[in-house]
Amino acid sequence: MSGNTFGTLFAVTNFGESHGPAIGCVIDGCPPGMPLSEADIQADLDRRRPGTSRHVTQRNEPDAVEILSGVYEGKTTGTPIALLIRNTDQRSKDYSNIAESFRPGHADYTYWHKYGIRDPRGGGRSSARLTAPTVAAGAVAKKWLAQQYGVQFRACMTQLGELAIPFESWDHVRNNPFFAPVADVQQYEDYMDALRKAGDSCGARIRVQATGVPVGLGEPLFDKLDADIAYAMMGLNAVKGVEIGAGFASVAHRGTMHGDSMTPQGFRTNNAGGVLGGISTGQDLEVSIAIKPTSSIISPRESIDIHGQSTEVVTKGRHDPCVGIRAAPIAEALLALVVMDHALRHRAQCADVVASVQPIRASFP
Amino acid sequence: MSGNTFGTLFAVTNFGESHGPAIGCVIDGCPPGMPLSEADIQADLDRRRPGTSRHVTQRNEPDAVEILSGVYEGKTTGTPIALLIRNTDQRSKDYSNIAESFRPGHADYTYWHKYGIRDPRGGGRSSARLTAPTVAAGAVAKKWLAQQYGVQFRACMTQLGELAIPFESWDHVRNNPFFAPVADVQQYEDYMDALRKAGDSCGARIRVQATGVPVGLGEPLFDKLDADIAYAMMGLNAVKGVEIGAGFASVAHRGTMHGDSMTPQGFRTNNAGGVLGGISTGQDLEVSIAIKPTSSIISPRESIDIHGQSTEVVTKGRHDPCVGIRAAPIAEALLALVVMDHALRHRAQCADVVASVQPIRASFP
Amino acid sequence: MSGNTFGTLFAVTNFGESHGPAIGCVIDGCPPGMPLSEADIQADLDRRRPGTSRHVTQRNEPDAVEILSGVYEGKTTGTPIALLIRNTDQRSKDYSNIAESFRPGHADYTYWHKYGIRDPRGGGRSSARLTAPTVAAGAVAKKWLAQQYGVQFRACMTQLGELAIPFESWDHVRNNPFFAPVADVQQYEDYMDALRKAGDSCGARIRVQATGVPVGLGEPLFDKLDADIAYAMMGLNAVKGVEIGAGFASVAHRGTMHGDSMTPQGFRTNNAGGVLGGISTGQDLEVSIAIKPTSSIISPRESIDIHGQSTEVVTKGRHDPCVGIRAAPIAEALLALVVMDHALRHRAQCADVVASVQPIRASFP
Amino acid sequence: MSGNTFGTLFAVTNFGESHGPAIGCVIDGCPPGMPLSEADIQADLDRRRPGTSRHVTQRNEPDAVEILSGVYEGKTTGTPIALLIRNTDQRSKDYSNIAESFRPGHADYTYWHKYGIRDPRGGGRSSARLTAPTVAAGAVAKKWLAQQYGVQFRACMTQLGELAIPFESWDHVRNNPFFAPVADVQQYEDYMDALRKAGDSCGARIRVQATGVPVGLGEPLFDKLDADIAYAMMGLNAVKGVEIGAGFASVAHRGTMHGDSMTPQGFRTNNAGGVLGGISTGQDLEVSIAIKPTSSIISPRESIDIHGQSTEVVTKGRHDPCVGIRAAPIAEALLALVVMDHALRHRAQCADVVASVQPIRASFP
Repeated sequence: MSGNTFGTLFAVTNFGESHGPAIGCVIDGCPPGMPLSEADIQADLDRRRPGTSRHVTQRNEPDAVEILSGVYEGKTTGTPIALLIRNTDQRSKDYSNIAESFRPGHADYTYWHKYGIRDPRGGGRSSARLTAPTVAAGAVAKKWLAQQYGVQFRACMTQLGELAIPFESWDHVRNNPFFAPVADVQQYEDYMDALRKAGDSCGARIRVQATGVPVGLGEPLFDKLDADIAYAMMGLNAVKGVEIGAGFASVAHRGTMHGDSMTPQGFRTNNAGGVLGGISTGQDLEVSIAIKPTSSIISPRESIDIHGQSTEVVTKGRHDPCVGIRAAPIAEALLALVVMDHALRHRAQCADVVASVQPIRASFP
Repeated sequence: MSGNTFGTLFAVTNFGESHGPAIGCVIDGCPPGMPLSEADIQADLDRRRPGTSRHVTQRNEPDAVEILSGVYEGKTTGTPIALLIRNTDQRSKDYSNIAESFRPGHADYTYWHKYGIRDPRGGGRSSARLTAPTVAAGAVAKKWLAQQYGVQFRACMTQLGELAIPFESWDHVRNNPFFAPVADVQQYEDYMDALRKAGDSCGARIRVQATGVPVGLGEPLFDKLDADIAYAMMGLNAVKGVEIGAGFASVAHRGTMHGDSMTPQGFRTNNAGGVLGGISTGQDLEVSIAIKPTSSIISPRESIDIHGQSTEVVTKGRHDPCVGIRAAPIAEALLALVVMDHALRHRAQCADVVASVQPIRASFP
Repeated sequence: MSGNTFGTLFAVTNFGESHGPAIGCVIDGCPPGMPLSEADIQADLDRRRPGTSRHVTQRNEPDAVEILSGVYEGKTTGTPIALLIRNTDQRSKDYSNIAESFRPGHADYTYWHKYGIRDPRGGGRSSARLTAPTVAAGAVAKKWLAQQYGVQFRACMTQLGELAIPFESWDHVRNNPFFAPVADVQQYEDYMDALRKAGDSCGARIRVQATGVPVGLGEPLFDKLDADIAYAMMGLNAVKGVEIGAGFASVAHRGTMHGDSMTPQGFRTNNAGGVLGGISTGQDLEVSIAIKPTSSIISPRESIDIHGQSTEVVTKGRHDPCVGIRAAPIAEALLALVVMDHALRHRAQCADVVASVQPIRASFP
Repeated sequence: MSGNTFGTLFAVTNFGESHGPAIGCVIDGCPPGMPLSEADIQADLDRRRPGTSRHVTQRNEPDAVEILSGVYEGKTTGTPIALLIRNTDQRSKDYSNIAESFRPGHADYTYWHKYGIRDPRGGGRSSARLTAPTVAAGAVAKKWLAQQYGVQFRACMTQLGELAIPFESWDHVRNNPFFAPVADVQQYEDYMDALRKAGDSCGARIRVQATGVPVGLGEPLFDKLDADIAYAMMGLNAVKGVEIGAGFASVAHRGTMHGDSMTPQGFRTNNAGGVLGGISTGQDLEVSIAIKPTSSIISPRESIDIHGQSTEVVTKGRHDPCVGIRAAPIAEALLALVVMDHALRHRAQCADVVASVQPIRASFP
């Protein structure tokens, strides 16, 4: 109930602080018999890792994951899979100045008032570093969903600050540090350079997609697939908005065009984003999220200290000028965790139905 | 796990179908000793009720709620509060034609493939009628939160189809059928009339707000207050997008202006929407949701039947041309349920901290 | 979290007070497509019902159950099944005397101090009447388990006060009001008559059994099948002890005889009671429970009132001199709910394993 | 849902296998601000540790615990407390022979059929070694409950095989390897020596007690305090029976003596074992558990292999001839975890009541 477990049947319990001895998670509920090794997980961790380009924080941690349990002779056993990542880059710096003041846009103020105590080292528990175990758990979910149903997850950046990024091809995403679906990213490089020079930061918009999702996942009335996706995405650090399918554009739509027509060959459109009544249609899941600008900037900010007195806060150290840049693999992982959980929930109640279902093709040819 | 319970410590289990004998819910976890009667609940139910203007469905049901348990001599006892609403308007009409075909934009297709069986009467379980028990439960949460902390909830429409609605005053909201915060709603009346004449429907954008929320509510890492709000709102029928605070506008923001400055007199702005690091700041919670156009329209739609064959679907009967019109009280109720649950969760873990917290003023004077 | 929901995937939320308007439950997670009617449920309710013999309370209520939702055209739809039982025998008697004093052995004292308020009418929420919805939910679980796996549940009395009841045959159980597995129950009739004359009450021991349980149900490390059985049984009103298999006799056993040998023809013995390492073996589940004497007796008892002052309590009205007499169908229902929940949990994680499992015969021929 | 998390608000997620790299747990929900160090936890771990006398397994592991998170500058922060215990004594022995056959009385057969895969090294996940993280988590709960309410936990052996152990004093418990409440344990030493010589094993009965428990803990209708205690205890390896208060002796009791009388000076007796209607009375919690004889014995046993063929199993290696001997600290820890969870649950719903409760004295002077 204290909010550190994600999911119900594929339950991931996350622990750790940015500068504590270690971070990690325990995955409970993974089906048995699946081949799994550290290498399966490390690939996604490396995509999320800091220090991969000059546009992200230069904190240099290998983020090497160790499987502590739940795997025997290279296969999952159905028992909890504990994943451990040691924090190797714990600089013994002095945090006494920021320990007593609240950085605007950060969780400092709220942690302090919620718990009466706060670990100020690198943001403590509220650090984006804690997304690493989520990415690791997501890698396990991705592997099972790919094997079982052929589900694939991908994400890309569709806006950087004021700059909308056109969609050219998914193939470009892995070839640039922005996860941008375009061949030429020079303007985004220039934009980031100017931003860094100004001591400022910007937001981003990320698109996340799952293909091959079986029809029938999602639990009405409340644990709808889209509701759980919104929960997952809004829970990611710095996210301020979530859309499914047509999203906010739906407001200005007319009913005569919005509802996706069905034909024996498949759905004609996907305004629904792959979910109707909270249940997957078999179409691609389409999600879009808004990420706010990094709160840690070197420009001085007006704030108060723990005694309620005025102070000025200047953030030093290594920080991403746009946290959205590294958000793509994390958003993929979160979507994978949601789909995984609902896949198991669905077969718990409807295992007998699953075998007999013959849905139409997801997308119109 | 089958998704019909909302919340963890203030847990609301919803049941019923649109045209079954009854709908209702069981509220488990309400603190004892609070005065409660049917009248406390009926007021909000009446705000959500169909038939209140010519712009909403003319289904005429009193939606009278009966308290079956959990109240003794006018006070809650700490035991489950069961609420029952009989369905009085169950027309014995023939559903055989729509029972075998899937209405575009509806949950027909997904329910059929998930469960292998579907109650076609009025949308069955996926009907928006099932928001009535949620509104009833929300009324209980609202009452407790008002008494305990002075929290207040309100919602208004900020966009109707293509028409943005300016914010004039909360006072106007109760004086028009659109929950619009403006004095003159003639253009929205005209817009709806034209839409109905065209046999079409439109979407809406709703703003929801909570004031007086104590600092410290929300559980990191996963059950963040904003994550649970997103879950609640996206789970509401027809919602396709959720924003907290500055929402999607944050993408184009700069860090130097986005992070809300703090002063001894309070926060200077509220881009965060009342949540930092997933925990309430004490500022107003600000939420915005996108509602898609009603899928039930009288214009014929291309679709398929349960055998996968082409068919044309024409929806008859009573339907709201804009389901968003009645969404305001429902969105309020959902926000109240989220805040209520987190209020109880917070004092479970941090009861000793709560007493000693002295936050700054929520809003800058 | 307030303890009124039983189970996780087959989740039964119970509501109501002994003398309120109604009692009932909501079953969430029932697989779709199962034929279900009130008659399926009423049979077990009638076995539990008061007024069936002179040895049980004469409260005369038909306990007629109404299905409010979750069933369409005679089949479950996968949505919540709400069951309602109106309280018809609510005598408008004066409870003012017992409202201010605590009956020894009852929950009066603890409810008062936990909640600061207490519904004194007929024991309120702590009345054994609240087992009726559990029996109703158990009937639904029983039906599904019988259809899906051929699981059967039965229970009998094995001790009445000081009198051990020998086991002759399960066939006798339905032919006497004691659920005793013997042909001649005259001595138990006489025993009860003497007890009633003395204004006293006695305890009972009940044996509960499930046959045909598939191998593999139960979740280590904590939600073991036997752990959940113990939880279910100890939660039944008046139960003070639970045994699985050899139970307390195991203490004096030797390892060389206790561990049940396996042969290609099946297990040789069943000291385990059908559970090893918390997981079902496929053998019969064997459970035994101890029920304390009825606390409501007409002999006066020393107690205190809500002000802490000495008082004498005399219980009047209709009470079973041995609550254990009606416990058999309730214990069956609880065991069915536990097995049902674990059956769904098992296939969520291990659906792929289930198909390939070929266990040995449960019992040695 | 896969059964590796204990508790709801003080939730302990356990991971690891007997011979994997490490075992441990994550505690989520611990109140912030409590001083905590490894030393607080190590003391209880040492009481449970193997190799402490010649009557328990000689496996020699220091079981040194490392706190990975949730503590900052010596105090809990309210974030998850991850505890890690490395397995240092992983002998690289050949398990191929037992990997294909099922040891009677062990979980080998059921794990194999549940998961289709099994870690045979030292019992894998079903090893009693996995109680170590539970003891560690229990130590954290004990510390908080002692500070907050003055609750104390203790346990002793009351029967060893056929030998009933009289109760002399709690003071003796720590002075002998049996946790026996007697000054002279020579007969138990002799008994164990004879047993070991015979290549056999025996069971034990353990009494567990909590004093200073506040009135009001426990959630009716289902998550009763005694129900959760039964769940916790029956889930402990080798436990086959659980009693609360008078337990099975209640069956032969009369109502006129069983229900504990109340006086302004306190309860006269404690047949209830500290729980009425599932809620704590403030009296001592009294629990008794039955532990079966160790299944791992050197005498050969009749069994089958994974192909269903007859085989003979001989267990070699280090094993306790009576696993009950080390059960006392584990049972204490489990009781502490149950009480802790209910303490937090109670104040979530009833924080306002708690302050005003004035119960009578728990025990009669």
